[in-house]
Amino acid sequence: MKTPLTPLALADRAFKYYDRRLAILDGEYQDTYGSWAKRIFRLARALKAAGVREGDRVATLMPNTRYMLDMFYAVPWIGGILVPLNTRLVSEDYGYILAHSGASILVVDSNLWPAVESLGDRLPEVWITGSRIEGYPDYDRLLQEYSDEPIALPEINEDDTMTLNYTSGTTARPKGVELTHRNLLINAMDFAYHLNVGIGDVYLHTLPMFHANGWGGVWAVSGVGGVHVTLPKVEGNIIWELIRRHGVSRMCGAPAVLNMILQTAKTQEVTKPLRVATAGAPPPAAIIERMESLGFQVLHVYGLTEVSPFITVSEWIPEEKSDLVENRAQRSAYQGVAQILAGEVRVVRPDGHDVEENGQDMGEIICRGNVVMKGYYRQPEETAKAIRNGWFHTGDLAVVHDDHYIEIRDREKDVIISGGENISSVEVESVLFRHPSVQDAAAIGVPHQKWGETVKAIVVAKPGLTPTEAEIIAFCRDNMAHFKAPTSVDFVTELPRTASGKVQKFVLREPYWAERVKRIN
Amino acid sequence: MKTPLTPLALADRAFKYYDRRLAILDGEYQDTYGSWAKRIFRLARALKAAGVREGDRVATLMPNTRYMLDMFYAVPWIGGILVPLNTRLVSEDYGYILAHSGASILVVDSNLWPAVESLGDRLPEVWITGSRIEGYPDYDRLLQEYSDEPIALPEINEDDTMTLNYTSGTTARPKGVELTHRNLLINAMDFAYHLNVGIGDVYLHTLPMFHANGWGGVWAVSGVGGVHVTLPKVEGNIIWELIRRHGVSRMCGAPAVLNMILQTAKTQEVTKPLRVATAGAPPPAAIIERMESLGFQVLHVYGLTEVSPFITVSEWIPEEKSDLVENRAQRSAYQGVAQILAGEVRVVRPDGHDVEENGQDMGEIICRGNVVMKGYYRQPEETAKAIRNGWFHTGDLAVVHDDHYIEIRDREKDVIISGGENISSVEVESVLFRHPSVQDAAAIGVPHQKWGETVKAIVVAKPGLTPTEAEIIAFCRDNMAHFKAPTSVDFVTELPRTASGKVQKFVLREPYWAERVKRIN
Repeated sequence: MKTPLTPLALADRAFKYYDRRLAILDGEYQDTYGSWAKRIFRLARALKAAGVREGDRVATLMPNTRYMLDMFYAVPWIGGILVPLNTRLVSEDYGYILAHSGASILVVDSNLWPAVESLGDRLPEVWITGSRIEGYPDYDRLLQEYSDEPIALPEINEDDTMTLNYTSGTTARPKGVELTHRNLLINAMDFAYHLNVGIGDVYLHTLPMFHANGWGGVWAVSGVGGVHVTLPKVEGNIIWELIRRHGVSRMCGAPAVLNMILQTAKTQEVTKPLRVATAGAPPPAAIIERMESLGFQVLHVYGLTEVSPFITVSEWIPEEKSDLVENRAQRSAYQGVAQILAGEVRVVRPDGHDVEENGQDMGEIICRGNVVMKGYYRQPEETAKAIRNGWFHTGDLAVVHDDHYIEIRDREKDVIISGGENISSVEVESVLFRHPSVQDAAAIGVPHQKWGETVKAIVVAKPGLTPTEAEIIAFCRDNMAHFKAPTSVDFVTELPRTASGKVQKFVLREPYWAERVKRIN
Repeated sequence: MKTPLTPLALADRAFKYYDRRLAILDGEYQDTYGSWAKRIFRLARALKAAGVREGDRVATLMPNTRYMLDMFYAVPWIGGILVPLNTRLVSEDYGYILAHSGASILVVDSNLWPAVESLGDRLPEVWITGSRIEGYPDYDRLLQEYSDEPIALPEINEDDTMTLNYTSGTTARPKGVELTHRNLLINAMDFAYHLNVGIGDVYLHTLPMFHANGWGGVWAVSGVGGVHVTLPKVEGNIIWELIRRHGVSRMCGAPAVLNMILQTAKTQEVTKPLRVATAGAPPPAAIIERMESLGFQVLHVYGLTEVSPFITVSEWIPEEKSDLVENRAQRSAYQGVAQILAGEVRVVRPDGHDVEENGQDMGEIICRGNVVMKGYYRQPEETAKAIRNGWFHTGDLAVVHDDHYIEIRDREKDVIISGGENISSVEVESVLFRHPSVQDAAAIGVPHQKWGETVKAIVVAKPGLTPTEAEIIAFCRDNMAHFKAPTSVDFVTELPRTASGKVQKFVLREPYWAERVKRIN
């Protein structure tokens, strides 16, 4: 017998068995799985009444609130597709994604309303969570109009798209990654298994839920009957306060978040083992050591939105428990081995052969399996570029060590990852070119203590003009999301190019990475 | 993207990443995942050379040896279907199952050869593991003739049958339960998740692998890179010796096995937490308490071969940790809630409505989901009886408590479960009727200190004849597997029957269960 593989089945089970258990702690607000289910069913009815039908897209622009959690359940419960927008973009990005996805409703947190307000007619129907915004329905009030009677788990095709996650990549425009119910259930089980989340766990949402659906945590935590602790603002002191108050036992975040936790650690320690999964960049050994000394267990995982998002895990090997923490930290910096349900992961040379497992030969990480996306929404040519011969090509360049552990060394794509956020260098360059004094320009990633990498602009000024670094940076910040803007500018007289005219990024990057084994951070 | 859900993908991953890790400890013999894979590939080639093709059945009659483990991988690796025979049957049973399954090869442990030798021409091709048997190929020698080069994971349809597990049930003849690759992968993940098996774990095979593929442990343990410790003979002292020698951390077994462990406990204690899953009968509170005092953690699970086999788990609730051990023990005696991937479980009245969750109303446990079998092999009418309106009917009668926990109270089917083995009362009765002095007879289960239940025969003698209890028991033991034979006989003048002539088993059972809340043990 077959029934659909979907994270909604995890929810259905949780609503049934854990109805009296705590589900959500959102500031002073609390939900049991029972009360939460009621809100989700109200929301599902409200969406349906607003005309959302099977396959329709519904977008969110929210921080990690209880309302954001609701959306991950109610939208697919009526067959809709959730489009969780990155909260750090600018209105132009939102305009593009809303149009490209064809979302019929946008649910916005009132604090983020200014980021989309200017879109005017380009906005779909808007609902507001948080403070009232004149002219738009308030989420909580709206829901009161609908019944909270249970709605049976709908008939779902497990291969249908459940979420559409826009990601920055090699192009200036974000691409919509279509993840199916089956993709997301399999990834949620990898999440539950490798992070070892169980019924007694308290999960703090330090990771933005818009990032690949909180890596699957939005569903896995419910599946096991754990507690979701929301975190609308990622700040060290708030995180410590919630850890202390609620006995947080699991969380996820980029190394920059770990760093923030360490910066505000004072003399605090966690009183029960707190497992934290980190990804987006390899966690520096120094951070792992300090986290462990405070009682954290750092688990390094790796993935991309296109793979739901987990592919690998740097497994803790039990025999290594007695090793020096420095050794473990070094090993934890590797991306590791395929997660239990992630499918097959290989590192291949351009000729398609696997690299030698010698820690030297470099190749591209490719994978195939049940976590690989259905494709890029409405971009079959981009899908065909990414999934070739049945394998998804990550664009990440890695070596494989003697113990089969993968270690990423470089990136094939022009992507800069800063503080866990993907930045398209093409997009940064397109803004640089719009500056009146810029003749030629390139954007590269350079190492950064706090963010892993940061964007540097390499600029050739127009003849006779002398733009300043501050001027270029300010121009970029005015024209794109701040986290994407360069933090430094080098002026040169010419960019190194290939015969065919392509900028040789590796030449530009070389001086900043020369002392390092890896070309990413 | 979709790739087949199959336990073989777990194996493929283990062979790749854990090639230098210990995989099997079988007496003095050891395998790494690397050396084990080689033996599996040799075996796969040997089976193929012997003519095994996609969909062909291959049977085993073996205790828990490394060879038995091999079979769970090599047979499906070439598209075959494994038929693991219960080692406690008699030759007539084996003759029936071999014919019904149409197995083309039977791999037999030399110690069990006497149980099938008499079948003569009714035997398919036979291979022998263990000591040499004249005239039949020796497994180890045979494998030496084949290459150990890796064989890529084959193209599999996840809905194809992977194992055919014969189970005793309501009829005299065992039925072949068809479990698919998808069924078995989903169940293996439930096993890994709920038993919390990880890379550092050492798993002792106290549970016969022929029982629903060791409940999924044959694959789940490999999937996580754990160590399989084989156990050819289930004896308390041997179990303790292996626990001590290898640092066993996980095992499974019927309560009778737990009892055996306690009987031989002496002053021994386990030095690291040893989680033991038990099923087949609810573990008595006294056993749980004593196990816990020795350092075991007893997890009560419930299922049937037809559901791969797990459906429910009596979850440990973290807040209850501080409770009295007696309370926990009582709760652990319940069958609990659906396992995370087991699908939907309900308890329904004959009219199809769910029972009230009041610990009083009794109904039948039914379920649907990805662990429910494809069907009974070549018995569509039996399949249609078991799976009705999309729900599998377990035949187990239960109440549901206020906290959603299911507790089995009785059994609809005429099945007696003794020491974790299903016994068909119909089969026992069919032997009783063959006794020359027996006029009428019924077999019922009665409580038994060690085995949970044991078989009692209720006999009406032919007029003028006076068979003795010992005579009846001896006759049964001569004509069926010993564990199925009655251990006591009551003589009566008449059996209570319904108007339609059906024996009223509940009337017969009443005197033996009168003091109890439940009608099973």
